Amino acid sequence: MAIKAYGAFAADKPLEAMDITRRAVGPNDVQIEIAYCGVCHSDLHTVRSEWAGTLFPCVPGHEIVGRVSAVGGQVSRFKEGDVVGVGCMVDSCKHCHSCDEGLEQFCENGFVGTYNGPTADAPGHTLGGYSQQIVVKDDFVLKISHPEEQLAAVAPLLCAGITTWSPLRHWNVGPGKKVGVVGIGGLGHMGVKLAHALGAHVVAFTTSEAKRQDALDLGADEVVVSRNEGEMAAHAGSFDFILNTVSASHSLDAFTALLKRDGTLCLVGVPEHAHPSPDVSALIFKRRAIAGSLIGGIAETQEMLDFCAEHGIVSEIEKIDIQQIETAYERMQKSDVKYRFVIDSASLAKA
Amino acid sequence: MAIKAYGAFAADKPLEAMDITRRAVGPNDVQIEIAYCGVCHSDLHTVRSEWAGTLFPCVPGHEIVGRVSAVGGQVSRFKEGDVVGVGCMVDSCKHCHSCDEGLEQFCENGFVGTYNGPTADAPGHTLGGYSQQIVVKDDFVLKISHPEEQLAAVAPLLCAGITTWSPLRHWNVGPGKKVGVVGIGGLGHMGVKLAHALGAHVVAFTTSEAKRQDALDLGADEVVVSRNEGEMAAHAGSFDFILNTVSASHSLDAFTALLKRDGTLCLVGVPEHAHPSPDVSALIFKRRAIAGSLIGGIAETQEMLDFCAEHGIVSEIEKIDIQQIETAYERMQKSDVKYRFVIDSASLAKA
Repeated sequence: MAIKAYGAFAADKPLEAMDITRRAVGPNDVQIEIAYCGVCHSDLHTVRSEWAGTLFPCVPGHEIVGRVSAVGGQVSRFKEGDVVGVGCMVDSCKHCHSCDEGLEQFCENGFVGTYNGPTADAPGHTLGGYSQQIVVKDDFVLKISHPEEQLAAVAPLLCAGITTWSPLRHWNVGPGKKVGVVGIGGLGHMGVKLAHALGAHVVAFTTSEAKRQDALDLGADEVVVSRNEGEMAAHAGSFDFILNTVSASHSLDAFTALLKRDGTLCLVGVPEHAHPSPDVSALIFKRRAIAGSLIGGIAETQEMLDFCAEHGIVSEIEKIDIQQIETAYERMQKSDVKYRFVIDSASLAKA
Repeated sequence: MAIKAYGAFAADKPLEAMDITRRAVGPNDVQIEIAYCGVCHSDLHTVRSEWAGTLFPCVPGHEIVGRVSAVGGQVSRFKEGDVVGVGCMVDSCKHCHSCDEGLEQFCENGFVGTYNGPTADAPGHTLGGYSQQIVVKDDFVLKISHPEEQLAAVAPLLCAGITTWSPLRHWNVGPGKKVGVVGIGGLGHMGVKLAHALGAHVVAFTTSEAKRQDALDLGADEVVVSRNEGEMAAHAGSFDFILNTVSASHSLDAFTALLKRDGTLCLVGVPEHAHPSPDVSALIFKRRAIAGSLIGGIAETQEMLDFCAEHGIVSEIEKIDIQQIETAYERMQKSDVKYRFVIDSASLAKA
């Protein structure tokens, strides 16, 4: 069955309308009519082959919200009409230590990405959410309980949300903790909202004075313009945890210096060009750590979605039609979006 | 009261005999006749002004073992004749969060180093263990219960021992854990002994094939020559914790790649020239961390000394007279010592 999608046939070609097929619904499969799909930086990096290994045709998209249109005979958790989500993963080995612990993102045999991952389905690699429909194993389908009118803004929770939620939870962010979020973009604005809702004292770090009020509105208790050395110095040695969402090359030392003893600076973005080598003495003299974190497991993604529904948390978005995707990419590269583009998948019918 | 010491009057002068004074024994003081003092790289860095802020005259030495010769009226834990030790610290503020937690090495007001630290005593900065006697506040004096014939080899436990013990304990090294120790020198050889005695599976990493048998003799279960890519690759993703004692600039990526998910690479040496910037993706894709650790608190130093006495653990040493100190420094810089020089303080009488 052919469905409409949007993707690229080569790294140097713009995205365009294309017909793709999805597999027939197997016993453990959930077929989803996609309503919305968020636009993530990874989509752009992959479709333009800025990371190694892109397979073409490439259909990006891993912040998917939609409605179940069919389920396989073995599926009991979902039924037709349910509102569901799909994030960055559609499969994993399910038998390694990481999968056993519900941390499929660290699957020791490699998780299957929602796009550009290995699959027996045509064309031999997975095709993502810039499409009308997707068929996904039930174990990788999330329940969504937000109200109908919020669904577009729920989509970015499936990647931007869980990428910030997982480290905040892993490093025990909550009441009594002082937490920094570096970079107020697609990821960072979710980091601020989630850390605030978890009860922490949240300090947002931005290079842009213009984002000060926005960051406060998102839930930050304080905002520091990181180019201002005096503002930075006032917070020296005071943070339990800093979530750094900026992948552009920058000095990490400015942030490690703000950590308390035993504090962690957690990076969630891979820089294209290496950050300057971090100052080891800043780690040694306060037993600080620089760590990394990758999206999140399926169970914690469900936990995050339930928490967000309960606390009325969604992403700040700008809705677009799929035909605007190239413009959206250009604006995203200039950080000209507050804070995430979300594709209204109904527009694919016009493609 | 003048006592004999050995130190330098300037960064470009060799160490020489000098007379120094120690303060009169105050109510909380313990006066110690020094029997042995280990020779640490920090001694050399400080006395040669390779680190900022050396005050002259400089008398190094912070791996001190000796006998109590007098105690103040308020001192109840020690009596004349007790065998005791002094490590890298002789005071701290005692009222910050870190001191409250027994982590004086992270004193938020700055601990007082055993040498080159601030003091009211003449000449206005502390003078270390290359001397016949020292007077130290009782809170910073450690009990030593090793047998008499081991005392010279106990001295290096006060810095090399605790510097490796503290991170091994903080990161819960013990049975069932696979632990790496990088660099088999003054620190590393203690790391291997301690990690082995703590019950971990210990892998020693060395650049020198010649150290293979030595590392096994020290207690390593396996030895990897880190220049051998094949040997390294065989351990990919398998370590819970790696203690890196090498401060010469080198690629950390070779070791982060060997950590399991959630593993930590802990650095205890500050490189003179920065290490190459570590690969952030190696951190993100397995939630690994690069951390630092600094010596250890007084309580954990006592814990380490008691553990070592119980398990018969001492340092591997080469005993020298103080008159050989410049030669010892030269050999230490070439790693030509197995594995720590210890000054027989009786030789100071000949100075």
